Order: sequence, then structure tokens, then C-alpha cells
Amino acid sequence: MKIAYDEATKGMLADEGGPFGAVIVKDNEIIATAHNEVLKSNDPTAHAEVNAIRRASQKLGSFDLSDYVLYTTCMPCPMCLGAIFWARIGTVYYGATDEDAARGGFDDHRFYEMMRGENQDLELNQLDHQESAKLFDQWLEKNDRQLY
Amino acid sequence: MKIAYDEATKGMLADEGGPFGAVIVKDNEIIATAHNEVLKSNDPTAHAEVNAIRRASQKLGSFDLSDYVLYTTCMPCPMCLGAIFWARIGTVYYGATDEDAARGGFDDHRFYEMMRGENQDLELNQLDHQESAKLFDQWLEKNDRQLY
Repeated sequence: MKIAYDEATKGMLADEGGPFGAVIVKDNEIIATAHNEVLKSNDPTAHAEVNAIRRASQKLGSFDLSDYVLYTTCMPCPMCLGAIFWARIGTVYYGATDEDAARGGFDDHRFYEMMRGENQDLELNQLDHQESAKLFDQWLEKNDRQLY
Repeated sequence: MKIAYDEATKGMLADEGGPFGAVIVKDNEIIATAHNEVLKSNDPTAHAEVNAIRRASQKLGSFDLSDYVLYTTCMPCPMCLGAIFWARIGTVYYGATDEDAARGGFDDHRFYEMMRGENQDLELNQLDHQESAKLFDQWLEKNDRQLY
């Protein structure tokens, strides 16, 4: 957690992004460290956890991080939590809460409300359901499909 | 939506990922098109919507896509919906549902349950709260901080 904390401080002081850091570990070996780089990269998805997952998956040549542990200085936002699910990470240790992040001016807490359908300010419309659903028929007909 | 559908088909047939495509548009101008590239890139975050947001933000040099519309062949998963929130996209059109994706063997529906705390198989522990919360004090003391 100390390394994640130092990453967060480093990124913030370098004006690369908000005060968030993350580390991915297996058997006491550090696989990836990262901090928030939204400001540096102009990429709204460049959160510490997403960056750490990307780095670890590139290093390992695998999208499956099942046996890895992620340390992060703040409770993952909905995007990062989703990324953790997809990476199949089994254990997460986090420091600050989404209320702490809200105090810093970050929208994590509000986005959790929006995920629950509260205070929604996103217009989400369905269109061409049948045609898009057919893509999964094509997928299921594909004998060499690889699930992830 | 036709372009998103064609992206999904292209990515699936090229074995780059599952059958998902996305397009970001403003005033009838296409800013970015993308499909799922999880298998090609070994990056578990390389979903169509995240890829489209990354490409659009790089093209525009901005993490703020407030005035843009995203078309996607499937209801965004929690990670992608979070990415859409952070990119400040205001309008999303989606085709298939998370139940359709489940039929194809994808975990979107289950991950929505996990976001609500149901069927949780992620171990999420808090650690060193006070020290991590202090990062936001340092952030608030930083006069030149840029919010995103």
C-alpha cells in the first residue's frame, strides 16, 4: 500500500492526474505499478487501476489476472471495478472511500449512484435490438471462438 | 448503428475479440470507430466502447466528450458505462442487452449483479484508510489542480 501511496503522490505532483495509485502483486512480487494519468494522456479511462491492469496484462501476455492481488489508494470507481471483474482479479485492498474522493472533487460516489439508476444524467436508449442480438448467434456459430 | 454492427462483425471474424462494436459521433461526423480487441491485445479493458473513447479522446486531445454520442451494439458493461460517465458522454444508443450477451457466454449481466453486491466473488478489503484519505488533503492544497 505504501508503493501505491507513493505512486499517487508522484502522479499528483507531476500534474499527470488525480491522487490515485495502484499496484498489482503476486506472491509478494510486484507485477505493475501505476497512477492516474488522465491529465497527462487526455484519456478519461487512464485511472490508476486500469493502467495497472493494462500494464500487468501486457507484461504477462494474458487478459486473465485471476491469481493476482490489486492494492489501490482509493475504492475503485465503477469503471475500475468493472475492469477488475473482467481481469478476474480475486482480491483488492483499497485505502480511501468514494466519499473521501468526493471531498477531493471526484465523481466516484455520484457515478455509483448513477450505476444504480439514481440521479441519472445519461440518456441511454435502445435501438435495433434484433439486429444487434443476432451478433451473438453468429458468435455461437463460430466453432473456434475463445471466451474471455 | 450499422457501422458499429459492421465493426463488431469485423472484430469477431478476425478473432480480435467478442462481437461488440462502437462508434462515437458528433453532428453526424464520425470521430472514432472501434471493436472489442481483448483477444488481439490481451488487454481485458479493450472493450469496443473503451477503445472508441480512447481513440476519440486522443484524436480530440481532450478527456471531455460531453457533446458526443456513442452508438454500441450491446448495452455497455459496468466498466464501459463507468468510462462513458468519466468521458461525460451525454447520449448512448445500444442494441443488444446484457441478457443477450450472457447468451453468448459473456459476464456483463453477472457483473451488473456484482456491482449491486450480489453474487460477489471479489474479496474487497479496506486498509490504511487515514493515510490514503490524506492524499485528498494534499490534492485540495494544490492550488493548480485541474479537475476532470
